[in-house]
Amino acid sequence: MAQLAGVSVTTVSRVINDYPHVSKAKKDKVFWAMDKLGYVPMQAARQMRGSGSQTIGVVVPEIINPFFSYLINAIERTVDKLHYKTLIIQTFGRKQNELTALDYLKRHQVDGIILCALENDWDIIKGYQKYGQIAVCNEYVDEDTIPMVIGDQFNGLRQGTEYLISKGKTKIAYCTGRDSLLLQQRGKNFDSDRYLGFTTALQAHDLSFNPAWLFTNAHSIEDGQAILKQLSQMAQKPDAIITGSDEVATGIVSLAKSLNIQIPQDLSVLGVDDQPLAKFLSYPLTTIRQPITQMGQQVAEVLIDNIKGTTEPAQKIKLDLQIVPRESA
Amino acid sequence: MAQLAGVSVTTVSRVINDYPHVSKAKKDKVFWAMDKLGYVPMQAARQMRGSGSQTIGVVVPEIINPFFSYLINAIERTVDKLHYKTLIIQTFGRKQNELTALDYLKRHQVDGIILCALENDWDIIKGYQKYGQIAVCNEYVDEDTIPMVIGDQFNGLRQGTEYLISKGKTKIAYCTGRDSLLLQQRGKNFDSDRYLGFTTALQAHDLSFNPAWLFTNAHSIEDGQAILKQLSQMAQKPDAIITGSDEVATGIVSLAKSLNIQIPQDLSVLGVDDQPLAKFLSYPLTTIRQPITQMGQQVAEVLIDNIKGTTEPAQKIKLDLQIVPRESA
Repeated sequence: MAQLAGVSVTTVSRVINDYPHVSKAKKDKVFWAMDKLGYVPMQAARQMRGSGSQTIGVVVPEIINPFFSYLINAIERTVDKLHYKTLIIQTFGRKQNELTALDYLKRHQVDGIILCALENDWDIIKGYQKYGQIAVCNEYVDEDTIPMVIGDQFNGLRQGTEYLISKGKTKIAYCTGRDSLLLQQRGKNFDSDRYLGFTTALQAHDLSFNPAWLFTNAHSIEDGQAILKQLSQMAQKPDAIITGSDEVATGIVSLAKSLNIQIPQDLSVLGVDDQPLAKFLSYPLTTIRQPITQMGQQVAEVLIDNIKGTTEPAQKIKLDLQIVPRESA
Repeated sequence: MAQLAGVSVTTVSRVINDYPHVSKAKKDKVFWAMDKLGYVPMQAARQMRGSGSQTIGVVVPEIINPFFSYLINAIERTVDKLHYKTLIIQTFGRKQNELTALDYLKRHQVDGIILCALENDWDIIKGYQKYGQIAVCNEYVDEDTIPMVIGDQFNGLRQGTEYLISKGKTKIAYCTGRDSLLLQQRGKNFDSDRYLGFTTALQAHDLSFNPAWLFTNAHSIEDGQAILKQLSQMAQKPDAIITGSDEVATGIVSLAKSLNIQIPQDLSVLGVDDQPLAKFLSYPLTTIRQPITQMGQQVAEVLIDNIKGTTEPAQKIKLDLQIVPRESA
């Protein structure tokens, strides 16, 4: 590069490292040669001088789920105001994709990472904290050193269940997106907290849960349709269902008419998320709204504060969910 | 690093550059020291040895629009099979965000970029072709050296308009997401092609277009609601509307009942995209389906072929749109 620019190696080094006292003419020559050779000073080199990549990574399971696309939107609009750029990475539930994202941190291509998915064991993720800031959003992490912004799943589901009971429903089915339900102490685990909220409300009204009404792996509109078909053939039918997502709720209400099931009289359907289209469906969805915008804003602010060197203990922020009553329940 | 690993500088260099004939014991020492120091061989260095980042960048306007989240999904699922990783970047319509994405190409942090948004002039984007492969998806590009995969907007909108006319509609309103309509020769411009398809169908039936029925900046559900309010106060009312997106169509049908407008008798509403929820709305949307999955697959395959060194002239692929008749028109 020095040869091409017609300057000394020292001058090239000074320009790249942004030292003072280099003439504009020499700088221009070096920049011209850099461009010619396709050379850009490495992020890592800049990082060592403390300027950083001014970029954060956001890791989500998949963006076709509007919960995550709107969460990313809230995060990116916040970091944008703080002059940071955003890279988005999908895991599709795979450990390797999450490690790829964490490698961007290791290579200093991002200054921080917001994990809205947790695929690897925390012991593995922790190993990357030495390369930059990590914050977790939506998922629960039982670890003192990591900031976390979550929705209060326990109380959200407890209130949703109370709402159904207040409408006279006593036989409530329950769906989860996972392939199993791992029950833990309250506050340790997203899915466990949802289920504990549900069963706490049942117990308060001396109601019991029929294990035949537990549906796992429920994600999509098609899953919801399959669940309603199963329900319609049961001898003991539930009179309400907590779906875990508006997609599943949409699938259930979409087939109700053709299966001769009246919504909400025969079956109340409770969604989760309050997607933008939830209120425009043939049966507008009663749903548990998640505080997506607040979650995104707050986790972004916490992460950037930490990148800038705030040394407070890692914050744990819990935000309220809210019942949105419409026609489906 | 050599000091920490207890090996010679030459050995470190050999390990980093993946030379043969280095003992496993020495390699392990160097890898341990690399990890200790947070050092990762630079992408650019690897690139010079020809291995590449095995990563592509996908640039879209914004992922909360399901058209783009599903397009990314199709792209990522395809490149994944070809053992490439994906980084997603949103432009929000800004030139600078697109340049940031193109800089990843310049720094060899990605091997190729798929632009599903075009913010900068093509002359600027072209300057980045020397750093890696660029392909365009959904947007039109009038440039021989660039592969492009688009939907046939002209024929899609022509057929959509023909469909409305076949249902007896003659006074058709038209919405665009842009703040103006730049008309060009057919095949040069996405929005122009849509509008030319619309007016070509009108002309074939000796129908004219009332300029009062052109709505610009129409993106969201709220925009659709505002348009219906305007329409309802017009002395001369259209009997059909081409909305440009399912969001705008959703907004229009959502207010119809309260404004005493019968869908489709008083007003036929034609969406574009066929979003997953379009068929579950209170008035299931008649819409023009875009070939999202095919577009994503094909542009991903073309880009990876080019990264791997296929030297055929840049392909131009045009895919058919399809009318999906439901209740709103």
